[in-house]
Amino acid sequence: MGGIGFDGRCGLAALCVLLAVSLAAPAAAAPPIPIVRQGAFEAGGAQLREGDKTLSCDHGYVEYQVPARARGLSLFMWHSSSAKVWQNRWDGGEGFQSIFLRRGYPVYLWDGPRVGRGNWGCASYTYKPSIGQDQQNFVAWRLGAKYPEWFPGVQFPTGDAAAWEQATRARYDEFDTSENARLEAHAAAAAIDRIGPSILVTNSNGGLRAMLAALESDNVKAIVAYENPGYVFPADFTGAKPADRFGPVMVEPEVFKKLTRFPIQFVFGDNLDKSSTWSEHAREARKFVDLINARGGKAEILFLPAVGLHGNTHIPFADLNNVAVADQLSAFLRKHHLDERSKGASKRVDQGRP
Amino acid sequence: MGGIGFDGRCGLAALCVLLAVSLAAPAAAAPPIPIVRQGAFEAGGAQLREGDKTLSCDHGYVEYQVPARARGLSLFMWHSSSAKVWQNRWDGGEGFQSIFLRRGYPVYLWDGPRVGRGNWGCASYTYKPSIGQDQQNFVAWRLGAKYPEWFPGVQFPTGDAAAWEQATRARYDEFDTSENARLEAHAAAAAIDRIGPSILVTNSNGGLRAMLAALESDNVKAIVAYENPGYVFPADFTGAKPADRFGPVMVEPEVFKKLTRFPIQFVFGDNLDKSSTWSEHAREARKFVDLINARGGKAEILFLPAVGLHGNTHIPFADLNNVAVADQLSAFLRKHHLDERSKGASKRVDQGRP
Repeated sequence: MGGIGFDGRCGLAALCVLLAVSLAAPAAAAPPIPIVRQGAFEAGGAQLREGDKTLSCDHGYVEYQVPARARGLSLFMWHSSSAKVWQNRWDGGEGFQSIFLRRGYPVYLWDGPRVGRGNWGCASYTYKPSIGQDQQNFVAWRLGAKYPEWFPGVQFPTGDAAAWEQATRARYDEFDTSENARLEAHAAAAAIDRIGPSILVTNSNGGLRAMLAALESDNVKAIVAYENPGYVFPADFTGAKPADRFGPVMVEPEVFKKLTRFPIQFVFGDNLDKSSTWSEHAREARKFVDLINARGGKAEILFLPAVGLHGNTHIPFADLNNVAVADQLSAFLRKHHLDERSKGASKRVDQGRP
Repeated sequence: MGGIGFDGRCGLAALCVLLAVSLAAPAAAAPPIPIVRQGAFEAGGAQLREGDKTLSCDHGYVEYQVPARARGLSLFMWHSSSAKVWQNRWDGGEGFQSIFLRRGYPVYLWDGPRVGRGNWGCASYTYKPSIGQDQQNFVAWRLGAKYPEWFPGVQFPTGDAAAWEQATRARYDEFDTSENARLEAHAAAAAIDRIGPSILVTNSNGGLRAMLAALESDNVKAIVAYENPGYVFPADFTGAKPADRFGPVMVEPEVFKKLTRFPIQFVFGDNLDKSSTWSEHAREARKFVDLINARGGKAEILFLPAVGLHGNTHIPFADLNNVAVADQLSAFLRKHHLDERSKGASKRVDQGRP
């Protein structure tokens, strides 16, 4: 690594141009993506009131694209660090948004309340810049055990300083508390009920929020959670690790049982053994899967190296081999008959609704 | 109006479903938009450093879509309240993003530093919810002189409570100070230099920021500013109104002269005479236009009622007649030969770059 430690504003024009040129993606040979309908809407939220004055706030923001000849179920992509992780591979190639539009799914990108374009909250908060976050990203995203020492064979364009800069800038404030996870989940349930039957595709602690949303919406038809740290557990389970800002969230056993209604897949990348944190998160996933399956659910864990995919990071769907990672998602959807083109569920699309 | 004053969370499921259904857009009869390439990137920014710890911050976020058989120049859409204003008409129909993709332009949506998805700043700030903002939006956006009394004939689906709720929620923190305008402009210049020759299409105080960006980038080929309040003026001009948070920004006369290099159009909606604030902003536009043209520039003001378009608001490109508003933009681009399909400027697109 190294070589991008510019100290000044990026307005240093020569450097910016250099970064821009080196980040250029190769020309796409694929045919155009046929977009029938796209746009955005806000969902959920509250209204503060004083007399006849109001503030509408704490909604989330949904950006949607519906391709031609769409499948019946939609993919609702729930990031943790920024919507950009769904939009491009780190080398500039297509992200899951475009890949799954090409595969016929309506795709929805979600910024929860107070996050990104949902940044119009009902409560005060103070943002503080955190120096060292770049180095923390590098380790937390399992690009390497220590910045800037890349894991051998990591699925990242390690020789491209601009790609690393783009990755570490792909952040916005996350508000990682259980309270905020519930706030986001609540607004997301409203969004999902507007969209119709959906598969929640999550990264990092988006997974916990998605499980909480599934407690509130019957339109959640599956969850595929990439690298999930926090879990919902039943109150009668005493084996969870102590709570931190990522959870777990404990719920009554009959509430927990709602998570047995649909398939859930947890996906983990490579080099888990190099991170005690991520090893622990994977152990919690195992506890969750065993609990859910013992109570009638359909949960599984996919370790990408076990199917021959090596070098994946915390954000596998943006990694260099993201098409192979997408193939695993397609296989999961096919296995559970979630990929069909024209069932009742697709009425929503035919009606021209976002 | 009325009827949307729900006091609780929108998790009141029945109400949310009702809102969702009533907001449904009509089925699109148009053919699909053929998207050759789409994604996002961060641009500009700084890096804070303490020893070997860093934070990469104060970049902006660009979301891009390039259609098949694209024209040479790109449209860089610079909102003031939220990116959503470019994405949909208030009744759910297509916004300028989709309309101009259909007309062959690559479209870039910009969230400046600290704004929306660029919300990863280099400085601390505190967000405070502002009760009464809904009513302020209504008046400031010239939907009516007083909430909730719509102007007669206003180009808004006044009978649709959900549309108004969507509009007033289409906000995020704006950081309206001259200092922030310069910060945003600086990052935008880096974005525009990466994109290549571009037309800046702005709303509200995005216009001031665009003028400042044009001082830093030679790739600005035109500015079309919808309802612009703040201006750049030369230091030798003494006739500007006193500065407030929207400007003006005073620059040296030789710097000001840079704004004579390309065509500029200011566009205003209807009912200006009902708003002393907006009447004044339009008078400032006239001063700017006269100054620029006296110094060799090509600036003009388009009052939409003067070309037969009535009832337009502060956000005319999201109004019910936004196709007619788009036709005015197309005519401006044609007049200035900014709509050509394959000049040198399009090399960027052919090379497959975002």
